[in-house]
Amino acid sequence: MERVFEVAASITPLDMAAMEQARSRQLQLTKPPGSLGRLEEIAVQMAGITRQPLPAVKRKAVIVMAADHGVAVEGVSAYPSAVTPQMVLNFLHGGAAINALARHASAEVVIVDVGVAADLDHPGLLSRKVARGTANMASGPAMTREQTLAAISVGMDVLKSLVERGIELVATGDMGIGNTTAASAITASLTGVPVSLVTGRGTGIDETQLAHKIHVIEQALTRNAPDPSDPLDVLAKVGGLEIAGLVGVIMAGAAHRIPIVIDGFISGAAALAALRICPTVRDYLFAGHVSVERGHQVILEQIGLSPLLDLELRLGEGTGAVLATHIIEAALRVHREMATFAEAGVSNREDGEEWQE
Amino acid sequence: MERVFEVAASITPLDMAAMEQARSRQLQLTKPPGSLGRLEEIAVQMAGITRQPLPAVKRKAVIVMAADHGVAVEGVSAYPSAVTPQMVLNFLHGGAAINALARHASAEVVIVDVGVAADLDHPGLLSRKVARGTANMASGPAMTREQTLAAISVGMDVLKSLVERGIELVATGDMGIGNTTAASAITASLTGVPVSLVTGRGTGIDETQLAHKIHVIEQALTRNAPDPSDPLDVLAKVGGLEIAGLVGVIMAGAAHRIPIVIDGFISGAAALAALRICPTVRDYLFAGHVSVERGHQVILEQIGLSPLLDLELRLGEGTGAVLATHIIEAALRVHREMATFAEAGVSNREDGEEWQE
Repeated sequence: MERVFEVAASITPLDMAAMEQARSRQLQLTKPPGSLGRLEEIAVQMAGITRQPLPAVKRKAVIVMAADHGVAVEGVSAYPSAVTPQMVLNFLHGGAAINALARHASAEVVIVDVGVAADLDHPGLLSRKVARGTANMASGPAMTREQTLAAISVGMDVLKSLVERGIELVATGDMGIGNTTAASAITASLTGVPVSLVTGRGTGIDETQLAHKIHVIEQALTRNAPDPSDPLDVLAKVGGLEIAGLVGVIMAGAAHRIPIVIDGFISGAAALAALRICPTVRDYLFAGHVSVERGHQVILEQIGLSPLLDLELRLGEGTGAVLATHIIEAALRVHREMATFAEAGVSNREDGEEWQE
Repeated sequence: MERVFEVAASITPLDMAAMEQARSRQLQLTKPPGSLGRLEEIAVQMAGITRQPLPAVKRKAVIVMAADHGVAVEGVSAYPSAVTPQMVLNFLHGGAAINALARHASAEVVIVDVGVAADLDHPGLLSRKVARGTANMASGPAMTREQTLAAISVGMDVLKSLVERGIELVATGDMGIGNTTAASAITASLTGVPVSLVTGRGTGIDETQLAHKIHVIEQALTRNAPDPSDPLDVLAKVGGLEIAGLVGVIMAGAAHRIPIVIDGFISGAAALAALRICPTVRDYLFAGHVSVERGHQVILEQIGLSPLLDLELRLGEGTGAVLATHIIEAALRVHREMATFAEAGVSNREDGEEWQE
């Protein structure tokens, strides 16, 4: 059996007993029941993921998968492909948005070259190049099935190595000029929503360029005819190496019972594909934010996840996911650190309805 | 002239030059222009508030104003008034939600007794009691104009003392059983929106209790007939001591050029009143989150502020505001720490449109 299906088979549901204990504790904390809204839900989900009624996250990381896209030659992006390796170096030197945000969140930044179309050499870089970028999906399949599986495997390996180093929460990130084109193609194929409704301006193209981008994606879908019932076929034909890598990260995260905070549209497309391989993956995910990219909203509705943040971001790199880790950790601190009504000597509701339920 | 109007007269607009420098820097950072959405706006607003093109926040605090409400005897809350002093002690012992969230955000918690109807003595408490709770607004004015001005003055004094101790950002918080009743009454009076559309379940009352709460507020507004063109009259007749205290915090914050992160419905009602006294105050505010309490949405629309978070909170205490400080600080770190295109050797857009604008 291929590794991706082995890992999928090893993913189990949330721990209901730990969740029930967490829910019971929430009702005893000195606040009206439910008054901390999503913070309460987060604590309960984290209990289910970690099997701990009082979960904590000591170490976390953001995995940024970088790769190039053959389709960039079609002029679908506002930036040249040269920006992919340049930004990878910027990440490695600590100068990108994700670096500043990760420092603020005390998260480690793990940069993976899974398919950049340039020679990159840096001690901080995980070089796991499967290919020098994808082929141009407008003229044929972006990847072979073997390349797709190899990129997924890279993601699984990276996740596993982080778990072995004690990382307890992972945010997903991406870098790849042209990758909103791939994400739109994946989303249109897997959801059946028209390309025009899942395609946005990416790094900032104008109306004419957007029409062209939509045309290129429609052409790629027609030419390659990916099978929507086979997410690996969709990933191979119209996906990307970094997106396949993130599929691996997400699936291995669920298998290792590690919470995965997904970022924007690119990470969302990877999550969508992962869920089509194994729906239980969903239990291990937090949607960090909702992107300005319109396709991302469609993905979140399909997956059934409500984003933690809506800050009109559209950068990728894992920026929205790392920002959301502040909220997740806040939820855990409230859950662990608050006093109960009994401990604090605070009167509960006059009707006693919620007392020690 | 009364102090509140003196302070109002001293509030000046944002520093346009610093904002323009901040905007210019944002366009040079290694990201597509605008791709960090609200983080970019936050950095620019903070530059305008602090007069610094590269603003930083080293120390921050949440001010929790606590007071009781005479109207609680009407049975408008799910909890008894005894919970107000009990929760104040919980704050002082570090066991409440705001304590856990403030520790996570490295914010100092400042608890002010501006009108709790109980004797409280604790070295950590700022005792600035103006009265032992308000009078019952259902039978007459909640406060005199003098009490209202005194409570506003308390807030101004507390803010000033924090500035003198080097606090650079302040979140607002509240504690007071019955205070959503006061906030609804203030909101209905100042906006003209019907009471039923600005009144919610507070700590968690049922449908019948909600109908009763609405009736009590309508009765209080009819009996006291506050003058909507006089925010001090509205605060006095149907407000609360902690709400007036927060008006003072907010106005003094603007006067001292300190960013103020407002919390939910109670803080929002205070912000609404402060803006009716001096509209320029708005420039110094961030809306930390939008509460489940329906009146809060009405306030944010009236004020014209978009919330940073929407996590279905309805606790108060400053919880949503303190959570939002993570986002504000993240925005500042990105703004200060990211490399420019030139510094990082990253190619800008092919059309060069945004290059060093």
